[in-house]
Amino acid sequence: MAEIINFSETAQPTDDALSDLHTLFQADLESVETTIETHMHSAAQLIPTISDHLIGAGGKRLRPLLTLSAARLAGYTGKHHITMAAAVEYMHTATLLHDDVVDDSDMRRGKPTARQIWGNPASVLVGDFLLGQAFRMMVSAESLQALDILSRAAAVIAEGEVMQLAAMNDAQITEDRYLQIIDAKTAALFAAAAEVGGVIGDASSAECAALTSYGRNLGIAFQLVDDALDYGSVGQVLGKNTGEDFREGKMTLPVILAYHRGDATARQFWQEVVAAPDTEAHEENFAHALKLMHDTNALQDTVARAAHYGEKAKDALGLFSESETRALLSRLVDFCIARAY
Amino acid sequence: MAEIINFSETAQPTDDALSDLHTLFQADLESVETTIETHMHSAAQLIPTISDHLIGAGGKRLRPLLTLSAARLAGYTGKHHITMAAAVEYMHTATLLHDDVVDDSDMRRGKPTARQIWGNPASVLVGDFLLGQAFRMMVSAESLQALDILSRAAAVIAEGEVMQLAAMNDAQITEDRYLQIIDAKTAALFAAAAEVGGVIGDASSAECAALTSYGRNLGIAFQLVDDALDYGSVGQVLGKNTGEDFREGKMTLPVILAYHRGDATARQFWQEVVAAPDTEAHEENFAHALKLMHDTNALQDTVARAAHYGEKAKDALGLFSESETRALLSRLVDFCIARAY
Repeated sequence: MAEIINFSETAQPTDDALSDLHTLFQADLESVETTIETHMHSAAQLIPTISDHLIGAGGKRLRPLLTLSAARLAGYTGKHHITMAAAVEYMHTATLLHDDVVDDSDMRRGKPTARQIWGNPASVLVGDFLLGQAFRMMVSAESLQALDILSRAAAVIAEGEVMQLAAMNDAQITEDRYLQIIDAKTAALFAAAAEVGGVIGDASSAECAALTSYGRNLGIAFQLVDDALDYGSVGQVLGKNTGEDFREGKMTLPVILAYHRGDATARQFWQEVVAAPDTEAHEENFAHALKLMHDTNALQDTVARAAHYGEKAKDALGLFSESETRALLSRLVDFCIARAY
Repeated sequence: MAEIINFSETAQPTDDALSDLHTLFQADLESVETTIETHMHSAAQLIPTISDHLIGAGGKRLRPLLTLSAARLAGYTGKHHITMAAAVEYMHTATLLHDDVVDDSDMRRGKPTARQIWGNPASVLVGDFLLGQAFRMMVSAESLQALDILSRAAAVIAEGEVMQLAAMNDAQITEDRYLQIIDAKTAALFAAAAEVGGVIGDASSAECAALTSYGRNLGIAFQLVDDALDYGSVGQVLGKNTGEDFREGKMTLPVILAYHRGDATARQFWQEVVAAPDTEAHEENFAHALKLMHDTNALQDTVARAAHYGEKAKDALGLFSESETRALLSRLVDFCIARAY
């Protein structure tokens, strides 16, 4: 299971809530894997090949786990949560494929991206296929309410990505605007993944709202920690995945904080590297960026912001009576934040 | 209405069934336009701008008309066919946006493509947004069966595009394989558009199958005529849209026929232009391609093949009692074929 729990080389949290969640939901997750595998088949050979590259066994399955956990909190005893969880992972994978095309990314988490191996056209089309299959799976779970939630999320994710595209190269973007972007592009799917688990389990509307809130705040926290990890996080320990956002000139919270807290010279620097990233001076610029972040506490405070959303996520769980699942979901929040240390 | 009915500059069919369909469904189509307009709104400004470029007023709305006509044939009197028809047009527009990225197309029907104006990233993401919105609309029509049909079509269309991508630059592709590709990438949406009209209208399963068959065969005929039009069609009268497929090295039925009927020299030529299209010798090569097609009757016989599928489409309508709608759908087939002359 080492691959699954190893979020990053820079962090080794001692309380491994994700691994424990994998253990608690082992049987369900095995069914999810089978469902994922089954829906990859296609008359077009490239489809399973590319799908398997991204969605094949070994992923951490964070979003499907939210659906499974939420369904259990709601006391659900049927089988539709499996299909929904697999559909959520398909949606996630489709957005990864398209994101890499949009961002011109060659690497993702230390591996070459699908577009780097098979090209942009195939990545766009296989993403479309996975999205189509995701909806087919959702339909088979026969819940119009769940379909409404996930189709809305699909549109919102795309909106978030378009907003991020428009904010590209704009060093002056506010923290509020950035939060609006990640709320759409990342947190919306976390929220929907948790909510549909509740809906499938026939939870009350207050419980469904609590699950949505848990997912949404966890999603924001998760993204902010990811942002910090791209700069080596609080300890600024660099691994093979650091510097990808910087190389793409992507505006993330660490940059926004460092920019707003910087003097005129620092702001000039940020404006230049954001407008024209990935130059020959990349290594030198990245080292300078790390120094500016260190001087302004940008990474530490990005994680502090993440912790704030994490606390909201944990409190949202208060509506449910105590259970092993609830305790693990609460610990999962801490685990996600702890990646940053 | 001139823009709507003007399929191509090379054809002026005297029996304008499409225009008559627009008249017959005028009230419904106005509601469809309103629904299309309403769902374009977004917090991301680029979304309505790009959507409007492709889906704004003035399109021929062929696929939505299939949904509206099928619902009327089924005797439907509710409002959900409007939403479904708009959703079908959204799906179609999403695939156009992604196709242009996949094909590196700069022009579509004489206009610059969205990717040419706003770039690939925006085209990919706005396509994703439209697909998400399409599913939201479908969900609001509250038919799981219709959702199943259209989500399946979404996956099949992407599969067809991937198959076409794999067949790119392969001059030896068989006619059967090509038919499999256009059945997926084009005819599947025509078929689904007609079928969901029947489903919404609670048509019998035999009637739904007939509507599917009508849509599917019309879709194949439509695509084959489009293929012929790209080479100036039977009369080889060149307009501003001709030569786009040739420039992209796209394998279509006219090329397949000309290749299979050609001698060794001709085959050598086709292999070269398909493997390395859009060279400096484009004009000269295109002229030679037209000559080879003329010598082998490739365009005429592409249209003859289209007419075969058109006849199947018309016969599928035999299951329904006589009505103005049925008569117009039958004439629509002839109109689509007549574009080729």
